[in-house]
Amino acid sequence: MDFPKVFPMPDAWLTHRVSYGETDAMGVLYYAEYLHIFERSRGLFIRERGMSYSTVEERGILLPVREAWCRYRVPSRYDDEIHVHCAVSEWNRASLRFVYEIKDPARERLLAQGSTEHACVNKLGKPVRVPDWLKALFGQPT
Amino acid sequence: MDFPKVFPMPDAWLTHRVSYGETDAMGVLYYAEYLHIFERSRGLFIRERGMSYSTVEERGILLPVREAWCRYRVPSRYDDEIHVHCAVSEWNRASLRFVYEIKDPARERLLAQGSTEHACVNKLGKPVRVPDWLKALFGQPT
Amino acid sequence: MDFPKVFPMPDAWLTHRVSYGETDAMGVLYYAEYLHIFERSRGLFIRERGMSYSTVEERGILLPVREAWCRYRVPSRYDDEIHVHCAVSEWNRASLRFVYEIKDPARERLLAQGSTEHACVNKLGKPVRVPDWLKALFGQPT
Amino acid sequence: MDFPKVFPMPDAWLTHRVSYGETDAMGVLYYAEYLHIFERSRGLFIRERGMSYSTVEERGILLPVREAWCRYRVPSRYDDEIHVHCAVSEWNRASLRFVYEIKDPARERLLAQGSTEHACVNKLGKPVRVPDWLKALFGQPT
Repeated sequence: MDFPKVFPMPDAWLTHRVSYGETDAMGVLYYAEYLHIFERSRGLFIRERGMSYSTVEERGILLPVREAWCRYRVPSRYDDEIHVHCAVSEWNRASLRFVYEIKDPARERLLAQGSTEHACVNKLGKPVRVPDWLKALFGQPT
Repeated sequence: MDFPKVFPMPDAWLTHRVSYGETDAMGVLYYAEYLHIFERSRGLFIRERGMSYSTVEERGILLPVREAWCRYRVPSRYDDEIHVHCAVSEWNRASLRFVYEIKDPARERLLAQGSTEHACVNKLGKPVRVPDWLKALFGQPT
Repeated sequence: MDFPKVFPMPDAWLTHRVSYGETDAMGVLYYAEYLHIFERSRGLFIRERGMSYSTVEERGILLPVREAWCRYRVPSRYDDEIHVHCAVSEWNRASLRFVYEIKDPARERLLAQGSTEHACVNKLGKPVRVPDWLKALFGQPT
Repeated sequence: MDFPKVFPMPDAWLTHRVSYGETDAMGVLYYAEYLHIFERSRGLFIRERGMSYSTVEERGILLPVREAWCRYRVPSRYDDEIHVHCAVSEWNRASLRFVYEIKDPARERLLAQGSTEHACVNKLGKPVRVPDWLKALFGQPT
């Protein structure tokens, strides 16, 4: 999976505390939970741009995930504070890609990285061109 | 919480295998997962009566949970096979109650028990009388 | 389930943002997720007393949930900010009870309430007397 | 992500029923849940070879996920029965790769595909050579 050498801008940083329910019998953050945490960070990214993803949906645009990828480097444990870096890395006609990095509280050590590709569809699930207002919102020249 | 002395009929038994993602750092089935498993067993109960809960919803009736209760007796671990017993224990004008028992594969040792109370509402979320077809479906004289 | 008329002190307030992954096909926060959120709030409660629950475990004391109860009053939706109020309501020889309230951001409207009873056990899973340092930590006269 | 043209053998097929708790506000199986379901299918794969993954761990070998990837093609909904195809696609000195396909009950329509790469580590988390008994168990000439 290609990961950008320079993390794209604009970006958002989510602070997340690992809960007991997110850990597994190995004592570490379970691998599927990373996708939940990525989702939390892109929700924050959108909110920091000034809109809730629920408003995006109300405007008739849904962004279902078409592909997800995650590379697990250093495990996290119960009560660890992790910092999740999120940005849009790629714009296509009817899709976009988010990238993520999870770091320690000093934001130095890389614990995990990932990406999600999202289709842009209308309420009937039909692919549509990414609207200009969404690009503008996410800080992309239209 | 009152639990019926005799398990009600008709009933359903779900067989469930504990996955790694359902365990926590204590090495046991995480306490919130029991509610997921209860939901699976009542879905099976409805399906065995001849209808999917999704059909119940298509007919305009939703059964959101208003109260949930669980008593954890013996912890389950990764790869354990557990058997979940489910039935309706109580009918009210606009609500009903499911009860659950989780047992070992011999269906002898009680591992957990619980109950969920469900409002009967229409698609606008307004409480409505439990329809006769639902009572009949669930094996209750109307 | 008895719920105290006056919320006990000391208390903690957790702010939680409802994620997409926590919602279900009814469009609301799924009922099992409340137990995850309760757990987050009691983790915060312990942390605000000056210790992580992981330190409690390192000292040889585990607090597995023996009983959980939740009353769902008003559903929460994607991106809602909810405030979770948490405190210890009851001390017994070898167990303790936490209570929870979930409120809107104004901390006025009651969305849900619940409780969890925890056994106090050692690393072998054997019930032990609640240690004085734990009572003192949680703000209880020993 | 490379996906093998011919699905490897030996393989396992898991039948899974989509629960309400696995769906999200879009009404479909939430994207992180696929990783839980993949895990269930590789647990079944190992069990069908004659050993539980918990026995693998008891023998001192852990297989933590180092990388996960999923391509979502057709969404699944509440109560859908899905069939999950699982096999080992790749053996390396100290790691192995599982691949997955999710299909409809006729096992014809491809709903999703994915892969997970697992490190082979000892109980201290140190990478070790994949043991011959594990290769033999998984149907690989040693």
